[in-house]
Amino acid sequence: MARKKWRSLLGIEHLQPEEITQVLRLARRFDGKPARPLLRGRRIALLFYEASTRTRVSFEFAAKALGASTAVIHATASSIEKGESLIDTGRTLRAMDLAAVVVRHPASGSPHVLARDLDIPVINAGDGMHEHPSQALLDAYTILRHKRSLAGLKVAIVGDIYHSRVARSAAFLLSKFGAHITLCGPPELVPDVAATLARGVRVSRYMEDALRGVDVVMMLRVQKERLAGRKLDFADYIANYQLTPERLRLARRDAILLHPGPMVRGLELTSEVADGPQSVITEQVHNGIPVRVAVLAHCLGVA
Amino acid sequence: MARKKWRSLLGIEHLQPEEITQVLRLARRFDGKPARPLLRGRRIALLFYEASTRTRVSFEFAAKALGASTAVIHATASSIEKGESLIDTGRTLRAMDLAAVVVRHPASGSPHVLARDLDIPVINAGDGMHEHPSQALLDAYTILRHKRSLAGLKVAIVGDIYHSRVARSAAFLLSKFGAHITLCGPPELVPDVAATLARGVRVSRYMEDALRGVDVVMMLRVQKERLAGRKLDFADYIANYQLTPERLRLARRDAILLHPGPMVRGLELTSEVADGPQSVITEQVHNGIPVRVAVLAHCLGVA
Amino acid sequence: MARKKWRSLLGIEHLQPEEITQVLRLARRFDGKPARPLLRGRRIALLFYEASTRTRVSFEFAAKALGASTAVIHATASSIEKGESLIDTGRTLRAMDLAAVVVRHPASGSPHVLARDLDIPVINAGDGMHEHPSQALLDAYTILRHKRSLAGLKVAIVGDIYHSRVARSAAFLLSKFGAHITLCGPPELVPDVAATLARGVRVSRYMEDALRGVDVVMMLRVQKERLAGRKLDFADYIANYQLTPERLRLARRDAILLHPGPMVRGLELTSEVADGPQSVITEQVHNGIPVRVAVLAHCLGVA
Repeated sequence: MARKKWRSLLGIEHLQPEEITQVLRLARRFDGKPARPLLRGRRIALLFYEASTRTRVSFEFAAKALGASTAVIHATASSIEKGESLIDTGRTLRAMDLAAVVVRHPASGSPHVLARDLDIPVINAGDGMHEHPSQALLDAYTILRHKRSLAGLKVAIVGDIYHSRVARSAAFLLSKFGAHITLCGPPELVPDVAATLARGVRVSRYMEDALRGVDVVMMLRVQKERLAGRKLDFADYIANYQLTPERLRLARRDAILLHPGPMVRGLELTSEVADGPQSVITEQVHNGIPVRVAVLAHCLGVA
Repeated sequence: MARKKWRSLLGIEHLQPEEITQVLRLARRFDGKPARPLLRGRRIALLFYEASTRTRVSFEFAAKALGASTAVIHATASSIEKGESLIDTGRTLRAMDLAAVVVRHPASGSPHVLARDLDIPVINAGDGMHEHPSQALLDAYTILRHKRSLAGLKVAIVGDIYHSRVARSAAFLLSKFGAHITLCGPPELVPDVAATLARGVRVSRYMEDALRGVDVVMMLRVQKERLAGRKLDFADYIANYQLTPERLRLARRDAILLHPGPMVRGLELTSEVADGPQSVITEQVHNGIPVRVAVLAHCLGVA
Repeated sequence: MARKKWRSLLGIEHLQPEEITQVLRLARRFDGKPARPLLRGRRIALLFYEASTRTRVSFEFAAKALGASTAVIHATASSIEKGESLIDTGRTLRAMDLAAVVVRHPASGSPHVLARDLDIPVINAGDGMHEHPSQALLDAYTILRHKRSLAGLKVAIVGDIYHSRVARSAAFLLSKFGAHITLCGPPELVPDVAATLARGVRVSRYMEDALRGVDVVMMLRVQKERLAGRKLDFADYIANYQLTPERLRLARRDAILLHPGPMVRGLELTSEVADGPQSVITEQVHNGIPVRVAVLAHCLGVA
């Protein structure tokens, strides 16, 4: 891979491990110190077709930390409502001498469609049920602040795997580095076929089985709006899959707990574990900025 | 009070007069000259759970004047819709190395809840029917550009006191400095108990009585949306409580007229008085910026 | 016209050709190189009462390129909902030491009302069915990158002229410089009286007639939402007025195709022509930034 060349970040699935390592190393360099204005005078658009606080604000502060000018475009507050296609919106923004576009879209594959058309980096900030690569990078970065290596690490990912771009991107990344991943949840949320997602992935229906001896527990949000019409019983879900202090005790004593947020306390996990000593949930958000600074610098070829 | 220490601004009620004086003096220093970039490289989030133009834009320009990076979060356009709690949203933002969070929220006490949880300054930009401290500070600042002192000053506050965080914060502040305050309006909007709000406060049902000989008239917006279901008759309200040139003549000849905006002309006041020589309504908005620059610099301990 | 004096940009109709030429020359100077921070420390509000992506983002990046601080105000996300008048909103913003306000409003003439009241430049970013002057300036700028002069140029403007502020501003501008303009569309969208819009304007019902031998084709969006209740048949419209490769061949071989966006491909034009070699649609967007940098610098009297 040539340095100083721009590239998009569309997903984790097709990335080389070396590129992931490079971004994570870059994030390490940016962490905790003010970024140099490597993108001064450059423009970055944040194009959000779905509501988002943490990802949007994190990318916005990351871009500003590098000195870039930003414009936030919420699809619902813009002329995109008038029926313009994503491609035309992308071209329009690109014609404004954009250096990059960060895009979140409810349709899987949208950033790829954009990237195929544009000659600037497209950074996927979450597309439908497909990928959320910057989240996976910050998750890996967070894990590596606590564990020596991803290789051989035992990771349980619990919850709505089926609808979760976070779970998919995380599984792709962790698998590339040799982690052992157990996806856990009821069949409605974790279909059997999920085991074929990547090497080293298996499915378990039992949380006790999934958690025993793991190094990392990754809880996912139960997205109520995505369950409409499905016959998932919350009481059942809580009984079988809520992360409680008792269940967390099945993991290794030095296991860490991740959650991409926003959390629904009392549903997928209790406040005790969310705020407990093993939780690195706040660290994840913190790490989002240096990781996204690194993603931008890497994709724009300035670092 | 130690200097160079951060602190929140949650309300006026529990502030020491010295701290208020300090902020007002600081605002004086910032007024009319470009602020130094005391907050360069620092991040401030503007978290608005209620619509706002003047307060949000005023804080945004104040933060930018100090060189801070800002991100605006409208609760309705963000993942906050997904049911995340205020505390978790606050922690998330804080984890992004925020220097401060400015919050407006429809629930009274929300900023206090946030401040108890976070280790950064929380600045209340209006919480429910409780307080709007930066507004009270800019009101005091504006009055002091025209009157030598707040002590002994006669102030009438007319309108919907019951629902008004502006009135509450103003009454707390003016009372601390020895002003005499008359709250005026019908019982539905000014309950008798309002007289116990602070020392030096009394209630009057008659505008003629409330206005006679006062130095300052503070008119409040009649919030139509808050009156739904109540049996308040607008024609009656106008007949009894609208500020007209005739009524304003009951005040001292050098009395000044304040209104926090947005005004509904023809309802709580006529255009003649709103745009008349005694009106300092535009000055209030102008003063909002140096006062909020001072609030930020003070709360973040950089001035 | 004195230099170094501020002025508003409300419309093209009453501008002197010399002022237009001056702005276009200025845009040329700003094009392709980083603007100097001529507006550092100045504040510009972008007040949008209608959804917009390209115009808002273009003005936002233009203002930031000049070093100004910006605040975006979407009328639907602000206290403007509370019934404050446009004038009072303008005065409020102005009181915050604004250097200029850029305003888009659904009511024709709104920016004029604001400008009459304020002592700062008001820049019309589109008002109802009236004018969209920065669009006309960037259209002229784009044409002049391809054609030596506007004088004697043959221009066809096709589509919903009746509702189009873009068409009105373009016709005013092109007419001032001696272009010959044919407005083309069905009577519902192009009333006969449109021929009186400016000197050198005529109306045609037949696209073949309108396009023959022209130097410039300007296609307009068919605004579905504006046709509600009218008995316009889309199939008919496409049959008679859609720009196809065959129809474009009636124009001069070196004719260029403009569209203000957002396009509805397959309705007013086909993708073949939109993406064809004669299309300068993307250039228009690109030129929007230097033209708006020039507009801001010109209106604020800094260049």
